Amino acid sequence: MSGKTLGCETLHKGRVFSLVRERVALENGIAIDLDIIRHPGAAAMVPLTEKRTLMMIRQYRHAVGGFIWEIPAGTLDSAETPLECAKRELVEEIGYWARTWHKLGEITPVPGYSDERIHVFCAMGLSPAVQHLDKDEILHVHEIRFEEALKMVERGEISDAKTISGLFMAKLRLDRGFM
Amino acid sequence: MSGKTLGCETLHKGRVFSLVRERVALENGIAIDLDIIRHPGAAAMVPLTEKRTLMMIRQYRHAVGGFIWEIPAGTLDSAETPLECAKRELVEEIGYWARTWHKLGEITPVPGYSDERIHVFCAMGLSPAVQHLDKDEILHVHEIRFEEALKMVERGEISDAKTISGLFMAKLRLDRGFM
Repeated sequence: MSGKTLGCETLHKGRVFSLVRERVALENGIAIDLDIIRHPGAAAMVPLTEKRTLMMIRQYRHAVGGFIWEIPAGTLDSAETPLECAKRELVEEIGYWARTWHKLGEITPVPGYSDERIHVFCAMGLSPAVQHLDKDEILHVHEIRFEEALKMVERGEISDAKTISGLFMAKLRLDRGFM
Repeated sequence: MSGKTLGCETLHKGRVFSLVRERVALENGIAIDLDIIRHPGAAAMVPLTEKRTLMMIRQYRHAVGGFIWEIPAGTLDSAETPLECAKRELVEEIGYWARTWHKLGEITPVPGYSDERIHVFCAMGLSPAVQHLDKDEILHVHEIRFEEALKMVERGEISDAKTISGLFMAKLRLDRGFM
C-alpha cells in the first residue's frame, strides 16, 4: 500500500538542503520521477508568557520578498535533537530561556516535494538570556497578545504556515486546559 | 529595509518547480547565497458541508514516506487564477462542485527557501461531480466531522501544514459567525 523507490539521483547539494530525483513505482503500477528536497528537519516554538503574550519575530525572508511574522524556528544541526534545537534557537533568535517545554506536534510543510519535518513546541516560564543572531538573520522581536495573534491570522497578516499551525496547536490545548 | 538581489543562477528546472541560487545583499551589509525554490503557487480548500463535516483526503506522499491527511489542493496551471485552480482541483480530487467560495487567506509554507504561496479557500454548498484523478495521484476521500478534524490536529494525526492552517482559518471565521 505505498510507493517503492526504484532509483535516486542527487541533482544538487546545498548548504541547508539537497535536491534529489527519485524514480518511484506507485501502487497503481505507474512509475514516476519526483523531484524531492531532502532537508535535515527543523524545530519551531510558541514562546508563551504568563501574561498570555507571545514573543514573535518579524523576519526578512528574501524568498517571499519581505519581512513576515513568524514564531522562532531553526534548522536542526547534525546530532542535535529537536528539543535541543528549539532551546538553542529560542536563545539565539529572541534572547530567552524557557523553564517548561511542551511538544505540540510535528508538521510537514510541503509533503508533495520535501521530507522536511518541523517539530513544534510551546515554551513557557520565559526568562531573559543573551540573543545572538546569525549574520544572515535580519529580524526584530515583538511581544504580542495571544488573542491579537489569532486576529492577525484571521486578518491575513500572518502567512507563515508553521506559525499558523503552531498557534492553532497551542490554542487547542489552551482551550481545553491542557497547558 | 530589505535585501537586494545581486545575481541569480538557475540550478535545476523541474516539472513542478525550479531551484535557483540567488546572491543577496542584506540590509546589514552582508552578502549571502540563498538556494530558493521557484514555485508557480497553489490553491487549497476546506470543503465544508451543511452538516458541518469536511471532505478530506488521505493521500500517498512519497516525500514523507506514506499516506497523510490533507485538504484537497493542487498547483496552479499557467494562466489559471487561484480560484479557478481551487474549483478544478475540488472536482478532480474529490468529485464535488461548490456553490459558494470564501477566501480564507494565503500561506507561505516554507518562506526560508521557497516562494510558494498557497491560496486557501472554504468551499460550501457542495454537490457531487465526477472525480478524475491524475495518474500519479493515489488518494482516498473521507467525510470527517469538523470537530473530529480539530481533535485529529490536537492528537497529531494531521501533520500537513496547509491542512492545519486551513482548518484554523475556517474555525476562526466559523467561531465568529463570519461563514
